[in-house]
Amino acid sequence: MSTPWTYRFAQRTKVIKSSVIRELLKLTQRPEVISFAGGLPAPELFPIERFQQACQRALAENGSCALQYGTTEGYAPLREMIAQNMARYGIVAAADNVLITSGSQQALDLIGKLLINPGDRVLVEAPTYLGALQAFDVYGAEYVPVPIDHDGLQTERLEEALRSGPKFMYILPNFQNPGGVTLSEARRHEVAFLAEKYGIPILEDDPYGQLRYEAEHLPPLLVVDRENLQRDDGYRLGNVIYLSTFSKTLAPGLRLGWIVAPPEVIAKLVQLKQGADLHTSTFVQVVAYEVARDGFLDEHVRKIRQVYRERRDAMLTALQEFFPPEVTWTHPAGGLFLWVSLPEDMDCKALFAAALRENVAFVPGDSFYATGDEGGRHMRLNFSNAPPGRIREGIRRLSIAVQSHMNRPELIAV
Amino acid sequence: MSTPWTYRFAQRTKVIKSSVIRELLKLTQRPEVISFAGGLPAPELFPIERFQQACQRALAENGSCALQYGTTEGYAPLREMIAQNMARYGIVAAADNVLITSGSQQALDLIGKLLINPGDRVLVEAPTYLGALQAFDVYGAEYVPVPIDHDGLQTERLEEALRSGPKFMYILPNFQNPGGVTLSEARRHEVAFLAEKYGIPILEDDPYGQLRYEAEHLPPLLVVDRENLQRDDGYRLGNVIYLSTFSKTLAPGLRLGWIVAPPEVIAKLVQLKQGADLHTSTFVQVVAYEVARDGFLDEHVRKIRQVYRERRDAMLTALQEFFPPEVTWTHPAGGLFLWVSLPEDMDCKALFAAALRENVAFVPGDSFYATGDEGGRHMRLNFSNAPPGRIREGIRRLSIAVQSHMNRPELIAV
Repeated sequence: MSTPWTYRFAQRTKVIKSSVIRELLKLTQRPEVISFAGGLPAPELFPIERFQQACQRALAENGSCALQYGTTEGYAPLREMIAQNMARYGIVAAADNVLITSGSQQALDLIGKLLINPGDRVLVEAPTYLGALQAFDVYGAEYVPVPIDHDGLQTERLEEALRSGPKFMYILPNFQNPGGVTLSEARRHEVAFLAEKYGIPILEDDPYGQLRYEAEHLPPLLVVDRENLQRDDGYRLGNVIYLSTFSKTLAPGLRLGWIVAPPEVIAKLVQLKQGADLHTSTFVQVVAYEVARDGFLDEHVRKIRQVYRERRDAMLTALQEFFPPEVTWTHPAGGLFLWVSLPEDMDCKALFAAALRENVAFVPGDSFYATGDEGGRHMRLNFSNAPPGRIREGIRRLSIAVQSHMNRPELIAV
Repeated sequence: MSTPWTYRFAQRTKVIKSSVIRELLKLTQRPEVISFAGGLPAPELFPIERFQQACQRALAENGSCALQYGTTEGYAPLREMIAQNMARYGIVAAADNVLITSGSQQALDLIGKLLINPGDRVLVEAPTYLGALQAFDVYGAEYVPVPIDHDGLQTERLEEALRSGPKFMYILPNFQNPGGVTLSEARRHEVAFLAEKYGIPILEDDPYGQLRYEAEHLPPLLVVDRENLQRDDGYRLGNVIYLSTFSKTLAPGLRLGWIVAPPEVIAKLVQLKQGADLHTSTFVQVVAYEVARDGFLDEHVRKIRQVYRERRDAMLTALQEFFPPEVTWTHPAGGLFLWVSLPEDMDCKALFAAALRENVAFVPGDSFYATGDEGGRHMRLNFSNAPPGRIREGIRRLSIAVQSHMNRPELIAV
């Protein structure tokens, strides 16, 4: 009997951190489980009919292009549309500031590839988006975590953290995943000021920005940075790389996101993207453009906002109704998530097993901390993927697990 | 005036090798140019109507799934179909041996990420696929090139090259890009034997395997390896990672490829793919499945084979008719490319400028060598993207450039 390569492979390959959330999701897909664990948009809002029309048009009028190889930068009309749409948030960008990516997860990967050498530090919020940690880990990143509060990143702790020389800061300013909090306008100015002072760029991740359910949009860090630099020459220079996506507004199954950056940064990222996947599916880009055009996307986003606002409110109301007073939670002004904090001594990983027995699921908070050992008493709840009645029932079930866990934690710990 | 991060970024970032081909393609897109430079399938063969039907069905019957997040491994019915289809080439694989990737370029990137640490060597054919070098370069690969001849990789030079300890061998056995040559059956056995002897895995890249225009299919290295190991337990262990794609059979604009490997290797690649792009577009996967199913793909591939065979023959005939006897070329049994060799002292980079003046384009051969300084007298010609008449005219134009270059190279050199 021989010993083919695979034998040794399994032993010698370094272990790669898996996505806890994606593994959990597999457990929670039984139909009787109400899952607040994922970050799934509501599939009943997908504009199926519009997609059907868009596919017909894309193939009939533009099939040879839509099915052929394309440029790495992306489908020109889509880049143009994205650049125009961002103007409403004050972002002055041209098509050559935009690189289309295979979801904004790929944007995180490409930026990790470009900027991170083994041992380099990345300044992150604590907690932060797990997928970013996964993308950066591969390149040997280490982390400088800065805690968040109800106004987002605690900028009074930022300067000290910047002095440790991180390669860049990774910030989710709007309705942060997982915290659900929004970086205040005053703090945005502080972040931009410090980025310029220390020469450390900002990676601004904004997947949810359009899904605001109350109050006014705040200026993106990209815009605040440009005001700070007093530049009005288009986006030729600056300290911010901005990311967004169609995953939360059109459909995540497209895997379609984008990067906004000065053209020289885009040029480097294009070279890396060539090696990574040549380009994002032309077919998906043409279809997404045909779906989004002529104002459809705006109209559709208004609909999503209304539905998700109701779901957020249903969750906030149910938490108020069912949860004991020792438990607190954030009040997200938008996005998909809220963040629940149990009393100091509680452990949400143990609670997770109890919750599954009640047929309800969430993500334990420790997954979202770059440096582990934190977040044990927190949980992330998603409110976009279930109607209000089911949200209320899920929170009721979860409260049973929480109550019993608070009373007799020793019975529930795994 | 401030000095935002971008200023310094452009200076300090390491230069990344760009894809010569993709840059050239931009030059050759004037309509009057007959370009043999790309590797584009014939767009007039794209099955537009079938795609339209598939989109309607995918959205009407399966829209919530097709537009939602999916598993990293890929859409289960598509993985199943791929596993079944490969059986005709003797590959015994189950769905859990298959990972769907965003084109096989992403497969190259993920494998580079998994296996290459800076300074590691990769054994490659000389010449080889440029995109693989781009993918591996990023991870700090160095190369052990082994030359090819009309029977593919020169295996009599392989053992010595393997003694230098490469991490893996990257081989395109069928209608190699750029050489157009096919690894003989005897040499396939030799490669598999040496892989096992030295414990060095094979990355078998087979984008063109189905596009064979004459003679019989040869067994993939994966199959030869398993015969060599005398294993029949499904693909649990082995020395081969196999790659293929829908880019040349359905449409490259889908960006849809796959990896076949033992499940433990797949599991590691899945973790890396999570960080790279979460998963390949569900929408594209469902549509491709709906297009390919019920025997359509087989029927369509038969049509492509017939058309490309005629184009290959048109190019071979025109070369015979117009080119001087000092010039030689390969006779590809399939695929998209042939490889032309000029006399020893000629330089195809200089010839490229002369050819563009005649409104015809090709890729200079030196782009395809891992270690530079080679291949100057070669050129790669693509025959899939133009009808026979245009191929003949293009070869006639190219022969004018070649003739004048051979007679008076000093006038044409740039």
